[in-house]
Amino acid sequence: MTSYLYSEIMSQPDILTNFLDTQSENIAKIAQSIRDFNPHFVVIAARGTSDNAARYAQYMLGIQVGLPVSLAAPSIHTLYDQKPNMSGGLVIGISQSGRSEDVRQVLEDAREQGAITLAITNFDDSPLALTAKHHINLCAGEEKSVAATKTYTTELATIALLTQHLTRNEDNLNRLMTLPSYMQQTLDLAVDMDKWVQRYCYTERIAVVGRGYNYATAFEISLKIKELCYIVGEQYSEADFRHGPIAIISQGFPVIAVAPEGKTQALMIDLLQKLNEKQADCIVISNSLDICQLGRNSVQLPANIPEWLSPICAVLPGQLFAYHLAKSKGFNVDQPRGLKKVTITK
Amino acid sequence: MTSYLYSEIMSQPDILTNFLDTQSENIAKIAQSIRDFNPHFVVIAARGTSDNAARYAQYMLGIQVGLPVSLAAPSIHTLYDQKPNMSGGLVIGISQSGRSEDVRQVLEDAREQGAITLAITNFDDSPLALTAKHHINLCAGEEKSVAATKTYTTELATIALLTQHLTRNEDNLNRLMTLPSYMQQTLDLAVDMDKWVQRYCYTERIAVVGRGYNYATAFEISLKIKELCYIVGEQYSEADFRHGPIAIISQGFPVIAVAPEGKTQALMIDLLQKLNEKQADCIVISNSLDICQLGRNSVQLPANIPEWLSPICAVLPGQLFAYHLAKSKGFNVDQPRGLKKVTITK
Repeated sequence: MTSYLYSEIMSQPDILTNFLDTQSENIAKIAQSIRDFNPHFVVIAARGTSDNAARYAQYMLGIQVGLPVSLAAPSIHTLYDQKPNMSGGLVIGISQSGRSEDVRQVLEDAREQGAITLAITNFDDSPLALTAKHHINLCAGEEKSVAATKTYTTELATIALLTQHLTRNEDNLNRLMTLPSYMQQTLDLAVDMDKWVQRYCYTERIAVVGRGYNYATAFEISLKIKELCYIVGEQYSEADFRHGPIAIISQGFPVIAVAPEGKTQALMIDLLQKLNEKQADCIVISNSLDICQLGRNSVQLPANIPEWLSPICAVLPGQLFAYHLAKSKGFNVDQPRGLKKVTITK
Repeated sequence: MTSYLYSEIMSQPDILTNFLDTQSENIAKIAQSIRDFNPHFVVIAARGTSDNAARYAQYMLGIQVGLPVSLAAPSIHTLYDQKPNMSGGLVIGISQSGRSEDVRQVLEDAREQGAITLAITNFDDSPLALTAKHHINLCAGEEKSVAATKTYTTELATIALLTQHLTRNEDNLNRLMTLPSYMQQTLDLAVDMDKWVQRYCYTERIAVVGRGYNYATAFEISLKIKELCYIVGEQYSEADFRHGPIAIISQGFPVIAVAPEGKTQALMIDLLQKLNEKQADCIVISNSLDICQLGRNSVQLPANIPEWLSPICAVLPGQLFAYHLAKSKGFNVDQPRGLKKVTITK
């Protein structure tokens, strides 16, 4: 029987097509409200996979909208009962279930302070959706696998769509509409992965490195590997990695490098060369054949994806890597040990 | 011969005494300038160990000053040549050497935009110090070991002192002056650690968990273990840990829990009980004897440390743990492989 996880991974191009068709108008209206409000900064509250979507938002809103973005520390609101002053800001809560109480509390405090609030969830009637002034529904359908995949890529698409409506960039809006086709090509290009993934069946550790827009991708791939394969998966920005953690790398240490074409390319090539000198076992995700050749194994991405859209494609081979590795280890991919679909944290 | 690292770890109470004696006046003046400016949010740029000090600042300034804090993504400025609008904000750069070019670029952009800028470094003539309007010198003396210890605790003390001057909280200022004595007690209480650390000589992985003020401590202890012992050391907030990564924990997995008395205590106890059910190998850092008893090994902290000051003490046993473990593995503790004291990232 096909697992829910595999079906959900493969469904992402269709889910995104539906999302872009049905949510663009709502998101355009919300973007207009945000422009009218004219926020001076952005605060985003999220946990787990959704926190990785927030990392992507930090780059999208920082680079393309020019707003500083803070990833909230929800425990300031829940454990310490304090409310940093968010008035004048745009405060976004991201949660697949919309049931993370700590994320909801940040939005409630923000709304009371007069900030403009936006919830991004998969359920119109979720507590988070009901707390925020604005809501974007991911329309991803029920996610039956505990490990989030299709809700992650729709969260990223939500942020990409919101960004393009905030800047009214018609060219980029048109590029966004080609995303499902890029995603389908990416999945097709990764079709032989189940064979070479076997090599990593018994590794007890792995590192994932990305930078800029794909810093989020490194975090999300690492999280999938941890959740599904119970392997200690580290995640880094290329820069932070050089500031200490690179010391852990020795011969045969597997490192996944998320290195699509773009502004981060030269730095990632330099890092891969350094990793190869240390005889690390590099797995490369890139649309540059030159970069792919720096890996022992590689997953090619389709050509010409704009760098800001690449995270929505580059995560797909990572999801498949975690899926195939968990299968090769004989694990239950739909119900990892010790995890529930909805985690309620304070 | 005693290593630089060990000497530097043990010197921290004296370094802090000197720092508090000599820098309080300068910090009081800078706090007055910041109050006059009345910033609406804070952006902090930092890398590596200094980024962990920035995590502490997010809680201190969020909880005690009521300001939302954003940890900057320097690559937005350096790789993507964009400048999120930071006018109206307080922008802080933290770097031991003051030579991280990407951190300096964020401060330069902020100053041009009319933000109030503050550099925290160990050198008055460093590029970062010269770029910012205000500078706080850590006065920690030259740090000869590659792994930062005394500059980390003085960075935390800088933030604590700045916070208390911003809120003009005389009681807390007085409590801060007792910090060196708490630090000395902490080092004295950890004196037998070299014996029980042997147990972990051959582990290939370790996780470190903290929450709230001590989220930063978990990150910093994990970084020291990676830098000095080349062990894959994961770091989490107690909440994020439950949202996925807890799946990696199986029998005998070593987990360091940073759990001093305070608002996070009940959650950390609950987490430790769950980890014990999974037969993890828990190492507890706490001033509560009840919590210490939940660990196979534990390091006691002195009684009655206010929670907001506890990170400056709770990191010390973590530094010693990394030191003793590296020694037991036969590694060079002053010059870890593949690392330099100053890392220049773009």
